[in-house]
Amino acid sequence: MSSVDQKTKVSPLVVVGTVAIDDVQTPFGSRESVFGGSASYFSYAASFFTQVSLVAVVGEDFPNAFRDVLAEQNIDLSHLEVASGKTFHWKGKYEDDLNTAHTLDTQLNVLLEFNPKLKFQSSPEFLFLANIDPTLQLKVLDQVGRSKVKFVACDTMNFWISNKKTELLEVLKKIDCLVINDGEARQLTGQSNLIRAAKDIQNAGPSVVIIKKGEHGALLFDRANFFALPAYPLESVFDPTGAGDSFAGAVVGYLAKSKDLGFNNLKSAVAYGAVTASFTVEDFGLERLRRLDQGQIEERLKLFKKICSF
Amino acid sequence: MSSVDQKTKVSPLVVVGTVAIDDVQTPFGSRESVFGGSASYFSYAASFFTQVSLVAVVGEDFPNAFRDVLAEQNIDLSHLEVASGKTFHWKGKYEDDLNTAHTLDTQLNVLLEFNPKLKFQSSPEFLFLANIDPTLQLKVLDQVGRSKVKFVACDTMNFWISNKKTELLEVLKKIDCLVINDGEARQLTGQSNLIRAAKDIQNAGPSVVIIKKGEHGALLFDRANFFALPAYPLESVFDPTGAGDSFAGAVVGYLAKSKDLGFNNLKSAVAYGAVTASFTVEDFGLERLRRLDQGQIEERLKLFKKICSF
Repeated sequence: MSSVDQKTKVSPLVVVGTVAIDDVQTPFGSRESVFGGSASYFSYAASFFTQVSLVAVVGEDFPNAFRDVLAEQNIDLSHLEVASGKTFHWKGKYEDDLNTAHTLDTQLNVLLEFNPKLKFQSSPEFLFLANIDPTLQLKVLDQVGRSKVKFVACDTMNFWISNKKTELLEVLKKIDCLVINDGEARQLTGQSNLIRAAKDIQNAGPSVVIIKKGEHGALLFDRANFFALPAYPLESVFDPTGAGDSFAGAVVGYLAKSKDLGFNNLKSAVAYGAVTASFTVEDFGLERLRRLDQGQIEERLKLFKKICSF
Repeated sequence: MSSVDQKTKVSPLVVVGTVAIDDVQTPFGSRESVFGGSASYFSYAASFFTQVSLVAVVGEDFPNAFRDVLAEQNIDLSHLEVASGKTFHWKGKYEDDLNTAHTLDTQLNVLLEFNPKLKFQSSPEFLFLANIDPTLQLKVLDQVGRSKVKFVACDTMNFWISNKKTELLEVLKKIDCLVINDGEARQLTGQSNLIRAAKDIQNAGPSVVIIKKGEHGALLFDRANFFALPAYPLESVFDPTGAGDSFAGAVVGYLAKSKDLGFNNLKSAVAYGAVTASFTVEDFGLERLRRLDQGQIEERLKLFKKICSF
């Protein structure tokens, strides 16, 4: 039932990951059947900066309305495969402090058989491997022609660090940038100090490491430089789902637009990531991003610079 | 047995707090009879910026060598009272992540009868009420002539929030600035969001609120402005004891030197605080600060600015 039948033109940025339907409980309310998934948040956030091709799988139950949400942002859906069965479903709950998501239920459904096939006419310049099984991330790397891709970034999660570490270490050897949260960085390296953790990750492969610290901001490392950024301060966080994925989407989207991997530009990318993520958490799912425009992003970035400068 | 016999000249900055002898266990080793206490760390850090008068009590066992450490920094010890009995003794342990201090033993000793008597010839321009019983903080405020002091800042801890909240709220009404850590800010206000917590604290009195977040940096608020700063990144943290007190010492010391309470200068003060605290944690007790000079502080501040700017 693949929708990928013939070779299509590739976007400057390709993301491979999950598209999901989420049930989310927060202290401010509950919402069922919210449009979610790592690749959804990533591609929507990246679409403010560049064109994105989304590589993912959904089930036959995937609503046309959700598809339209992405299509309206000019996201290339030629590689959004529709498989027999149901869409990946995640159910989660946030406690009062909104810092930790408790997974109540995970129905992998069509994800169980997901085997991404990239049928683009050429390699993308920028590639993001969102949080999926490292075995699949390796398959994608084999297909794209690694040497032809200018910049490959990757995310992962605690489950893969625990259960697919060998494969994950193989992925690390082949990428330019790992985007990971603080707890996962510590778990992956056994280092409680995040600067040491970043160095260990760099020694395993990627020259650029971005550590997401949620409400505490982010750290950025290349082999010679270091950058620390607080989070954009929000008085009301409504739903943290997708914050990390939309952060990564803005970071890599901005890099794909500017095509500059110098450290100063990496810093700007991370600042755009923090600002974009700060919008994501202001409403359920993709709702806030759908009401967002480039002007609001620039305005908040300006305010953010003022808040951080001394 | 008070050593305060006649009125002495006041320094631009007065600190009232504890002087202690600590036993400290860290993952990197243990050390007994380390020179500690909130007022010791505060005054040493502040002494890089201005002259400080220290108001505290010690017992007859207090070593001359410790007294000399402060005297060498030109800290005014005319109000370091020597009382019958033993010096306040704290024994604590840090886990591997160095984020949480577990108190193993507290011997209040002479602190139990501490009743600060300020016999200065005039009121100080700047006053810091380090972490002591709010009842004593109120007594100090009565003695100094509140209206004559340009800027009063204050610290506290979870114990007083739990056990002396009424008195603490009285203190808040009379001060300009509360310096508090993130957990205590949440405990004091019942707000998990730190921006809301800061607003609640401002509504209770102080127009300036500084929230210390340890390895995640600090937040600064006045009634119109906001500033977020990451911590100075350290690969090796040796002993976190005194980080918060030396942070506050540098902040208020810098303000007392510059006599400028505008928001831009408050930002600079907080940055000096973060840098000074980053030195404190590089060795046991006051050891690293004793090897520190103004040039090293300025050099690290310059690097810190580079790390945070985008």
